[in-house]
Amino acid sequence: MDAPVLERLRLALGDRVDTTPAALDAARADRSGHSSPAPPLAVVHAESTADVQAALRIAHETGTPVVVRGAGTGLAGASIAGAGEIVLSTLRMRRVLEIRPDDLLAVVEPGLLNAELDEALSPHGLWWPPDPASRDISTVGGNIATGAGGLLCAKYGVVRDAVLALDLVLADGRLLHLGHRSVKGVTGLDLTALVIGSEGRLGVVVGATLKLRRVVPGTPCTVVATFPTVRDAALGSAAVTASGAQPAIMELMDARCLAAVHALLELDQPAAGVAQLTIQTDGRSAAVEAEQIATVLRGIGGTVTVTDDAAEGEELLRIRRGMHAAMASLGTTLIEDVSVPRSALPAMFDEIARIERAYGVEIPTVAHAGDGNLHPNFIVQGPEIPDLIWQAAGELFRAALRLGGTLTGEHGIGTLKSRWLAEELGEDQWELQREIVRVFDSRGILAPGRVFAAAPGAPGSAEDPHA
Amino acid sequence: MDAPVLERLRLALGDRVDTTPAALDAARADRSGHSSPAPPLAVVHAESTADVQAALRIAHETGTPVVVRGAGTGLAGASIAGAGEIVLSTLRMRRVLEIRPDDLLAVVEPGLLNAELDEALSPHGLWWPPDPASRDISTVGGNIATGAGGLLCAKYGVVRDAVLALDLVLADGRLLHLGHRSVKGVTGLDLTALVIGSEGRLGVVVGATLKLRRVVPGTPCTVVATFPTVRDAALGSAAVTASGAQPAIMELMDARCLAAVHALLELDQPAAGVAQLTIQTDGRSAAVEAEQIATVLRGIGGTVTVTDDAAEGEELLRIRRGMHAAMASLGTTLIEDVSVPRSALPAMFDEIARIERAYGVEIPTVAHAGDGNLHPNFIVQGPEIPDLIWQAAGELFRAALRLGGTLTGEHGIGTLKSRWLAEELGEDQWELQREIVRVFDSRGILAPGRVFAAAPGAPGSAEDPHA
Repeated sequence: MDAPVLERLRLALGDRVDTTPAALDAARADRSGHSSPAPPLAVVHAESTADVQAALRIAHETGTPVVVRGAGTGLAGASIAGAGEIVLSTLRMRRVLEIRPDDLLAVVEPGLLNAELDEALSPHGLWWPPDPASRDISTVGGNIATGAGGLLCAKYGVVRDAVLALDLVLADGRLLHLGHRSVKGVTGLDLTALVIGSEGRLGVVVGATLKLRRVVPGTPCTVVATFPTVRDAALGSAAVTASGAQPAIMELMDARCLAAVHALLELDQPAAGVAQLTIQTDGRSAAVEAEQIATVLRGIGGTVTVTDDAAEGEELLRIRRGMHAAMASLGTTLIEDVSVPRSALPAMFDEIARIERAYGVEIPTVAHAGDGNLHPNFIVQGPEIPDLIWQAAGELFRAALRLGGTLTGEHGIGTLKSRWLAEELGEDQWELQREIVRVFDSRGILAPGRVFAAAPGAPGSAEDPHA
Repeated sequence: MDAPVLERLRLALGDRVDTTPAALDAARADRSGHSSPAPPLAVVHAESTADVQAALRIAHETGTPVVVRGAGTGLAGASIAGAGEIVLSTLRMRRVLEIRPDDLLAVVEPGLLNAELDEALSPHGLWWPPDPASRDISTVGGNIATGAGGLLCAKYGVVRDAVLALDLVLADGRLLHLGHRSVKGVTGLDLTALVIGSEGRLGVVVGATLKLRRVVPGTPCTVVATFPTVRDAALGSAAVTASGAQPAIMELMDARCLAAVHALLELDQPAAGVAQLTIQTDGRSAAVEAEQIATVLRGIGGTVTVTDDAAEGEELLRIRRGMHAAMASLGTTLIEDVSVPRSALPAMFDEIARIERAYGVEIPTVAHAGDGNLHPNFIVQGPEIPDLIWQAAGELFRAALRLGGTLTGEHGIGTLKSRWLAEELGEDQWELQREIVRVFDSRGILAPGRVFAAAPGAPGSAEDPHA
């Protein structure tokens, strides 16, 4: 069955069809630390919308599954490809087609990296707010597919707030233009919003009209505050939010994270148990706001440093930026990603401590405290995540749901969390969402088994891609 | 066929089922100036989610069409009900269930008026940014159904940016909980965003978790600038946007609007042809920004007044607020609602002038110039909109589409614009959206004929509710 598909792909797309072992192997993994048991059929390096359409027409006609892939920096396994699947890579589609300072918009192709986009926008005094920690290596298309967030979201929003229009190729190769170039618009159903965060199940984004902002004037100020416990730090972040201040960045690191980064960067270790808030204010009132925040944090027992020096601020932020490398230095990392209402942050840290005790595991946790998004990390030795860790993760997810939160704040469901999806959505909504997917992709060739892997209550159903 | 439905509704809902001629007659119209040729079957005054579910179960089982209605302030005809239809009114569901200053959210019922919500939020120093001109009389549920905008959108966003979660009753009476209480969340498809602006076709919103902001500190400053022509005023607004200033409000009135309001308010008439920009800045930098804007506008020939006096500012804004009353004083008004990229505002005013000449009509126009949303008004005598006016409106819509804009910025498609919908979406997307509607409502009982009235290219198909 494979040969005819490959032949047809080669006939249509020539050497953009790649079956070298290195390419196939690379497509078996993403940054989640997981990989599929077998390599995919081929990687198609699409260079244009027409390429994407041609590949999908062939896949649709032959019923061959297709996994869309950007830079492969995902953390939930959505772009991990396995046996019998075509990988549709958009990495060569990385043109900036248009920058309009007067309309505060840009039109780009999906394979463009965030960092490349900002480089193109910077001479115009513009930027695109979504700011995932992976911004140097992740693509705009990947950001859209996951509905990515980042550090600046509480003040500047997420991807959903920053996309005006999308060009989408459907599973059968037809091209749709969703949205419009105007700021406002309520014509028909908002399919642009529906596609954002749909993790490759509804179609392939081949173009995006992005809503830009002007570069914020002034120099940011940085506030670092340490607290004797992580709960105190969480109360500190709640106090900042309650004070009415709106930091651009407010990151919380617990004691284990802080210790690991200090070790990695060869800095003096902080006192045992100490947790840290790293806060940045920006705009014309940056200094005033930083001082207000410092006063609030000192008032509840924080040890506070404030600086309006950009280089010094960057040095302080370096500790937060060292997180992923520090975790990786400890072993294989399962980076989790729950989100709760901001007021529930202290309660969520209590739940994490409870789960640590119950399962005898350590869960170093960093949080985008300004918006209630936590990244608890499970560290294991060796490539496999043991079942015990998945059980602990399951308890973590349920705790977030009980507190009014959600399974994933910004990484997506992918393959790794699909078994919990129905617990959050409820069976009726889960089934409704599946039916919507079928409207876009009647043959079910796009990323089968991702997000909606199993029937509710029945983990590991036939659609599970790597079961 | 009607009697059994009414009997079943009465059995389930008692005196919440209203068949008085006054109630039925009121449900035949909205604020668009249009009305249906015959009264509906009954008005159900739902007082709870259970009432909504009971009414929908009966409607679903009997295949009876249901039109959801809030305050009836819509401008596109979506809530106008006709023969054989049940009107499901949410006006009695107007409780504020929860206000959480620490999480910057509120949970409310759909029948709550915007003005009532702001009254409830104000003691907490909070507000909900969507700010339709109808805010004193329109409901939160109606805002959500239309994806409403308003005057403050360029700076503070529209409804889509300000809703975290929705409780939705499906056509068959099942209740779904969409979204979550956390700021971030990308679990599954974003059905919250899909329901916003779906104009009653996907389900009935019975509860909404709203994303709030803190009241902006400081006193707003008001800038009024007059220009010799509307084109100059449009260039003025583009210059303000290009300067990097971000006004909270930037409204443009053309000469005919200005003259009509001045006549209504018994003020001295402005010079012939003069158009006006009314701008408000807010926040800590309000005064600085107002002076910057004044300098920009003087530089391109505007006659500018600036005030930081709140009462005087309110007096200046009164002229903009008098618009709808002034139009109504001239005759029956068809308020149109196209949106274009901000840079296309001058070109759109040229198109309006061209259409005025081509059809021999006057089209007084006001625009939310900060976001490119125009409200051209067609004034006719008598209750009917003549076909010539619809032809002129059609040309207006096509001009907006050519300029990269959209059929409707904030009022919705309803019944009045459905015949142009496929021109914007394309036939493939139109059909796809219809199929999504069928997933939510397999029997097609919710607002049949609204938004998706006719098959593409075939106006007046069987689904047209008042054909």
